[in-house]
Amino acid sequence: MTSDISVSVAQIVAELGGELMGKADMAVARIAPLDAPDEPPFIAFLSNPKYRSQLASTRARCVIVHPSVREEAAACPSAILTEDPYLYFAYLTQWWAARFRPSLGQGIHPSAVIDPTAEIEPGVVVGPLAVVESGARIGSGAIIGAHTVVGPRAVVGAQTRLAPHVTVGADCHIGQRCIIHSGVVIGADGFGFAPHKGQWIKIEQLGAVRIGNDVEIGANTCIDRGALDDTLIGHGVKLDNLIQVGHNVQIGDHTAMAGCVGIAGSTRIGSGCTIGGAAMILGHLTLADGVHISAATVVSSSIHKPGQYTGFFPLDDNAAWEKNAATLRHLHALRDRIRALEKQNK
Amino acid sequence: MTSDISVSVAQIVAELGGELMGKADMAVARIAPLDAPDEPPFIAFLSNPKYRSQLASTRARCVIVHPSVREEAAACPSAILTEDPYLYFAYLTQWWAARFRPSLGQGIHPSAVIDPTAEIEPGVVVGPLAVVESGARIGSGAIIGAHTVVGPRAVVGAQTRLAPHVTVGADCHIGQRCIIHSGVVIGADGFGFAPHKGQWIKIEQLGAVRIGNDVEIGANTCIDRGALDDTLIGHGVKLDNLIQVGHNVQIGDHTAMAGCVGIAGSTRIGSGCTIGGAAMILGHLTLADGVHISAATVVSSSIHKPGQYTGFFPLDDNAAWEKNAATLRHLHALRDRIRALEKQNK
Amino acid sequence: MTSDISVSVAQIVAELGGELMGKADMAVARIAPLDAPDEPPFIAFLSNPKYRSQLASTRARCVIVHPSVREEAAACPSAILTEDPYLYFAYLTQWWAARFRPSLGQGIHPSAVIDPTAEIEPGVVVGPLAVVESGARIGSGAIIGAHTVVGPRAVVGAQTRLAPHVTVGADCHIGQRCIIHSGVVIGADGFGFAPHKGQWIKIEQLGAVRIGNDVEIGANTCIDRGALDDTLIGHGVKLDNLIQVGHNVQIGDHTAMAGCVGIAGSTRIGSGCTIGGAAMILGHLTLADGVHISAATVVSSSIHKPGQYTGFFPLDDNAAWEKNAATLRHLHALRDRIRALEKQNK
Repeated sequence: MTSDISVSVAQIVAELGGELMGKADMAVARIAPLDAPDEPPFIAFLSNPKYRSQLASTRARCVIVHPSVREEAAACPSAILTEDPYLYFAYLTQWWAARFRPSLGQGIHPSAVIDPTAEIEPGVVVGPLAVVESGARIGSGAIIGAHTVVGPRAVVGAQTRLAPHVTVGADCHIGQRCIIHSGVVIGADGFGFAPHKGQWIKIEQLGAVRIGNDVEIGANTCIDRGALDDTLIGHGVKLDNLIQVGHNVQIGDHTAMAGCVGIAGSTRIGSGCTIGGAAMILGHLTLADGVHISAATVVSSSIHKPGQYTGFFPLDDNAAWEKNAATLRHLHALRDRIRALEKQNK
Repeated sequence: MTSDISVSVAQIVAELGGELMGKADMAVARIAPLDAPDEPPFIAFLSNPKYRSQLASTRARCVIVHPSVREEAAACPSAILTEDPYLYFAYLTQWWAARFRPSLGQGIHPSAVIDPTAEIEPGVVVGPLAVVESGARIGSGAIIGAHTVVGPRAVVGAQTRLAPHVTVGADCHIGQRCIIHSGVVIGADGFGFAPHKGQWIKIEQLGAVRIGNDVEIGANTCIDRGALDDTLIGHGVKLDNLIQVGHNVQIGDHTAMAGCVGIAGSTRIGSGCTIGGAAMILGHLTLADGVHISAATVVSSSIHKPGQYTGFFPLDDNAAWEKNAATLRHLHALRDRIRALEKQNK
Repeated sequence: MTSDISVSVAQIVAELGGELMGKADMAVARIAPLDAPDEPPFIAFLSNPKYRSQLASTRARCVIVHPSVREEAAACPSAILTEDPYLYFAYLTQWWAARFRPSLGQGIHPSAVIDPTAEIEPGVVVGPLAVVESGARIGSGAIIGAHTVVGPRAVVGAQTRLAPHVTVGADCHIGQRCIIHSGVVIGADGFGFAPHKGQWIKIEQLGAVRIGNDVEIGANTCIDRGALDDTLIGHGVKLDNLIQVGHNVQIGDHTAMAGCVGIAGSTRIGSGCTIGGAAMILGHLTLADGVHISAATVVSSSIHKPGQYTGFFPLDDNAAWEKNAATLRHLHALRDRIRALEKQNK
C-alpha cells in the first residue's frame, strides 16, 4: 500500500452507502482495528455490540457500527451506521484494495512460455516465467501469476486470478472470478491402487477437476483429479490453506473449510457447510447441506442431519491427561463394573 | 482425453486377458462407473459381488466381473470375467492412459536451464523452464515437468516422471519408474536444533534422501533429508498428498500412506504397512511389518505386532460431545469412585 | 558432499574448543551415528550419558562426550570432552557444512527475471529463473533459490537463504540470517469472509507478514498475510514443514513448532514455546511464554500458565478402541450412574 492515501468519510458513504454521522470531511489513510494507534488516521468497525464500550477509547476517526450503538459512536469524530458492520467492512476492504493496491502488471510478460495453440482472451495478464500449455484457454481479464503452470487443455475462467507458483493440471476447469493462491495443485493424480501380491498396482486417474465460479483456494491446498469422473467444487466454495481434497470428492456451493482439513476420496459434502481446521473426513461418505464440523474432528460416517458436530480430545495438563488417557483404555470395562454394581444394588 | 475414442471389447481382452462373454465387437469410448449415463458408450467394473444387483440397471456396454456373477452379467451386452476385477480395472486404466492420454512433450524444451555438467540420458523429456543443476543425472525415458528443479548431484532414475513444480534437493536419489507429483519437496533440511540458552542452534542436515523404484509421491508432500544418514523410502511405497516425512525416517517396501499423515524424525516403518489419512506417528519409533494405522490416529509408542490400530475421538453432536469431553477430564477420578463403590459392596 | 574429506581431530578442537583426549592426529571423513560402519572413518557424539555403554562398541575414531563419561570414552582412539556434546555436535555440523558443502552458485543467474526497480545489495546470489519484482529489496549475501518469487516491495534480509520454489508475497519482510525452505508461501491472503445471504463476501487482506531474524521455515509451510495489521513471527522462531499460520497470528521469539501444526487466525503464542507435530491451535487465543503443547493436541482455549499440555486419544488395537470409543459416547451418562450408586450407598 502506498503511504499517501487520504479518503474522506463522505466519499466512502457515497460509494458504499450507510448513514453518515459526525464530520463528513474526516479523512482516513487506512483501515485498522479499533485499538490501533492514532497515526496514520484510520477507520475501524465494531461488529459485535457487546464490545460497544471500546468506542469510548478508540482513536479511530470514523467507526462503522450498527444503529443500536449510535449513542456510543457519537464519541468518535464520525461514524457510519449500517445494519451489518462486518459486511460493510468486507466491502470497504474490497473498495480499498481495488483503489489503492498496486496493479499486478499488464499484458503477457516476455519471459512467459505460452504454447501457440493456447487461447488467451483480451485483457489477460501473464506474469514472468509462467507457462500456458497446449490447448489451454484463459478467459478475459484473468491473471496468471509468475511461475504458474496452466496445463494442457486446462481452462481458466474470466477474471480469475492465479497467484505465483500455482499448478493447474491437464484438462482441469476453473470458473470465473476465482482466486487461487500460491502452491495450490489442482489435478494431481488421485490416490488409487489395486492391491496385488503385496504390491500396489496404479489406477490411472482419467478424470479431471471442475471448479465453479467465485471459488477461493488457499496456499498449498491440493485438489486431486478424479479416477473416472471429475472431482467437483461448487460455486462460492472457500478453501483455506493446506487442505487435501481427494479424488471424486464433491463439495456443494458456498461451503467453507479452514486450514489443514483432509477430505478422503469420493466423499460428498453438501452446500452451506463449514468444516473447522484440521478436521478429517473419511472417504465415501455423504454430509448433508448445512452440516458444521468443528475443528480437529474426525468424521467417520455419513451425516444426514444439519447441525454442529464435534469430536476431539479435550486438552489438559500433561499429568492429568496421562491418567485420564490410561483410564480411557479401560472405559468399556469400567462400564461393565458399573453395571455389576447396579445389579448388586437392585 | 480426446473424444473420438473407440475400443472393441475383443481388443481389450486380447491385450489384458480374461474370458469374454457376449458381443465381442461391442465398442466403448470410456471407462466409467456402473451408474454412468448411457453416452458415450462405456465399460465398467464390479469388484464386490455384494453389489451384483447393480448389473441389472447399468447401461455399460461391457462389465468386468468375477466369474461368480456370470449369470447377472449376462444382462449386459458383453462382459469380461476375471478373478480380480479391480486389478483388471487397474491394468485397463494403465492401458487406456498409455494409448489415449496426450503425450507429455518430447525432448528438452529450449527454455529449460540445464547445467552443462548434468548428465541427461537418451529419451528424456524436460519441460519448459525446468532447471537441472550441476552434476545431476537423469535416467533414460524420465520426464522432468515444467518448472521442476533437480538439484546439484541429484539422481532421477529411468522412466521416472516428475510433474511440474517438483523440487529435488542436492544429492537426493530417486529410483526408476517413480511418479512424483507437483509441489513435492524432496530433501529440504530436517528439523534439527540443539537448545542453547533459550535459543535453537541449527544442526546442519548432512544426509540426503534415497527413494526406491516404483514409488509414487502425492502433491505437496515433503520428505526431509537426513541429519547424518539418509532418509530412506523403500520400493513400491505409495504416499498421498500433503504428507510430512521427517529426517532419517525409514519406510519399508510397499507401504502406503493416505493424505495429511505426519511421520516424525528417525521413525522406522515396516513393509506392507498402511497408514490412514491424517495419522500422526511420533519420532524414534519402530512399526513392524504389516501394521495398519487407522485415519487420524496418533502413534506414540512402537508397535511390534502386525494388526489394525486406532485412536481417535468419536464424533458426536456438539452438545453431547461437550458433556462427554468435560466428563472425560475426570475419568480417572470416576474410576476411583467405582473402586470405592466396589469396596463398599463387598 | 565430496568424498575425499579428511579432517584431524586436533583441527576440530582448534576450531570449536573442547578438551582433546587420545590421538590428536586421528583423521575423520564424516560425522556419523555411534553405530555407523567403520569406513569411511567418522566422528560421533554421545549426548545422553545413559547410553555410555555404546562407547564400548562404537567404531568411531573420535567421540564427542561429556566429561562424566571420560573413562568409557578412553576406549575410543580419541575423544572430545565438552559440557554439552549435543551443542558441540550442532556447531560441528555447521563448521562441516561451511567447509565441505558445495557452494550454491554466485552472482545473478542470467535467466533470472529481476525488475529494474528492485534493489539487490552486493554479494547476493540469485538462482536460475528466480523472479524479483518491482521495488523488492534483497540484503547483502542473501541467496534467492531457483524459481523463487520475491513479490513487489518485499524485503529479504542480509544473509537470508531462500531455497528453490519459495513464494514471498508483496510487501512482506523477512529478517536476516533466515532459512526458508522450498514450497514455503509467505503472504497468501488470510482466510477472511463476511457471511451474507448464504454466501461469503471476501475481506481483502490488507496487512502483510513480518518475520524476524534467524528464523527457519520448513518446506511447504504457509504464513498468511494479516487482514489489517501484519502477521508477526519473532526472532529465532523455528517452524517445521507443512505448518499453517493464519492471518494476524503472532509467534514469540525462539518458539519452535514441529510439522503439520495449524495455528488459526489472530492467535498469539508466547516466546520459548514448543508445539508438537500436528497440534492444532484455534483462533483468537493467547498462549503464555513457555507453554509446551504435545503432538496432535487441540488447543481450544487460552493457556496462561507455562507447562506441558496434552490431549489426544490414546492408540489401541482396533477392537479395543471400538468398544472404548462407543462407551465414551455415553460417558456423561456413566457419571450419572456412578452418582446414583453413590447416593444409594450412603
